[in-house]
Amino acid sequence: MKALRFIDGELSLAEIEVPRIAGEALVRVSLSGICNTDLEIVRGYAGFSGTIGHEFIGVVEECSDEPSLVGKRVVGEINAGCGVCEKCAGGDPRHCEKRTVVGIVARDGAHAEFVSLPTRNLIAVPDNVPDEKAVFAEPLAAAIGISERVDIDPKDKVAVIGDGKLGLFCAFAMKQFTDDVTLIGKHQSKLAIAEKRGIRTVLLSSVDSEYYQTFDIVVEASGSESGFATAIEMVRPRGTIVLKSTFHGTPTWPASRIVVDEISIVGSRCGRLASAIELLENGAVDPSDMIDREFPLADAVEAMAAAATKGTLKILLRP
Amino acid sequence: MKALRFIDGELSLAEIEVPRIAGEALVRVSLSGICNTDLEIVRGYAGFSGTIGHEFIGVVEECSDEPSLVGKRVVGEINAGCGVCEKCAGGDPRHCEKRTVVGIVARDGAHAEFVSLPTRNLIAVPDNVPDEKAVFAEPLAAAIGISERVDIDPKDKVAVIGDGKLGLFCAFAMKQFTDDVTLIGKHQSKLAIAEKRGIRTVLLSSVDSEYYQTFDIVVEASGSESGFATAIEMVRPRGTIVLKSTFHGTPTWPASRIVVDEISIVGSRCGRLASAIELLENGAVDPSDMIDREFPLADAVEAMAAAATKGTLKILLRP
Repeated sequence: MKALRFIDGELSLAEIEVPRIAGEALVRVSLSGICNTDLEIVRGYAGFSGTIGHEFIGVVEECSDEPSLVGKRVVGEINAGCGVCEKCAGGDPRHCEKRTVVGIVARDGAHAEFVSLPTRNLIAVPDNVPDEKAVFAEPLAAAIGISERVDIDPKDKVAVIGDGKLGLFCAFAMKQFTDDVTLIGKHQSKLAIAEKRGIRTVLLSSVDSEYYQTFDIVVEASGSESGFATAIEMVRPRGTIVLKSTFHGTPTWPASRIVVDEISIVGSRCGRLASAIELLENGAVDPSDMIDREFPLADAVEAMAAAATKGTLKILLRP
Repeated sequence: MKALRFIDGELSLAEIEVPRIAGEALVRVSLSGICNTDLEIVRGYAGFSGTIGHEFIGVVEECSDEPSLVGKRVVGEINAGCGVCEKCAGGDPRHCEKRTVVGIVARDGAHAEFVSLPTRNLIAVPDNVPDEKAVFAEPLAAAIGISERVDIDPKDKVAVIGDGKLGLFCAFAMKQFTDDVTLIGKHQSKLAIAEKRGIRTVLLSSVDSEYYQTFDIVVEASGSESGFATAIEMVRPRGTIVLKSTFHGTPTWPASRIVVDEISIVGSRCGRLASAIELLENGAVDPSDMIDREFPLADAVEAMAAAATKGTLKILLRP
């Protein structure tokens, strides 16, 4: 089968064996989405080696555990736990110490014709959610996951910093919990996507002291140190900054403001796909206009270059 | 009266008027304690100018609001709010935007013969709590204040980094919520003070990978960047780091660990003195062995120099 591989620092489309792992399900990928994390990985992040890609929708091809799933459309939780530790036993493998992560940690990913996953990771997709929406389940879940880390009150004033794909999804997700969401970014065209959903938007260049220390929750989704600095300026005393971007480097931060104004800084990574599928099913979130372009999997290397172009929205791959 | 003043970058014992502020109570100071924040202030922190000192016990001398308080032993909440904003109306002036803070922000402090405070800031001290214990109410309250910012479960494994006065009080306070408290510091003699209270202690030089990522909550009370780095290493995935030290500078921090392991970093400043007085009253915390030396107020400048000597415990001033 064809697969987009990152091996020894080289990205290429390779012809490899269909991945058949004992006790796992085999999923024929219908569509996969290129995430910024994929771009980070090919820059050497996480030391990953193998098939990249973790956003996908597919059809179950083989499943000895639950044969009734064969032929069903599914998305997949990307964290595959050991299944026996306390966390896994509690139903949440996201922090299992031995976890593998689809296309990110020690497990081949989904920019391929097939992907292998533990059966328990599969989530059926309702008929009314087309592939072109379901492929966004993972990034939408990650955005919704903020609500697992921070209590969001319907009266809370929330700001999201960064109008890339991550920031937009975070804004859509926050809008599910409070009406008062402001997206701050650099691109009028991206901000317009949020405005269509009733989200207030502000160009970063227009953010002035009027905004300082006025937000209950600020989600940093720009992946930049300056975004974090802006978050620190905007959050109110006793407010919360959510760090959503796995950005590199070691930013500096004003310890005394954190202490004196009793600010909380909360890291947030993955969500749960079931909650995202629910929002896609009931129409609360429609990510259709987040698609920039679709490439055949055969052109995946070119697609990755397109995804790395500044200002690009979601690039999809179709095997 | 005599007062320890920090004016135009100069620390001196001065003779000034007794502070009589309309509508406030006048307290005759019995004892005051020198805090590291006092030392920071004379290094220029917070741009404060006036009488320093915010840890004290005294006797009400004048109180037109509540004459029955005259003659009573009291400690005082150090945050004096505007009294009318939402926060003050809610009974918590600690984040009032217009607050003054005794000896720290725009309000003369307690290293003096008298201190003036709003009557509502006064808290009566029970007879069984001698001055030498009551003078610790403020720093103990600040340590207990951690519990207002973080839920502490009786099963939580807590580490406190830093065996100075702040770290010791944080360890005493955490011990009220969970039995599993470990104090990490550089001084065997300080660690011994915690050990007497059943707190596990470890020399920083002995902290190895066995401790990494094993604590539910890590309280950073060392006031140093390296302490923060140690906290990041020791906290478990989805654990919480409490920042208790108002240290300067802009430390760097590994954003990707915060995000991937979903760590929370929570600033904590002041507590509530009533909770501290309760612990002193019922004997749950006895800070008697935290006193290093007592100076007459007349020798306050010398006392400040003594307090600045590395390894010093609490220095008290008696007017």
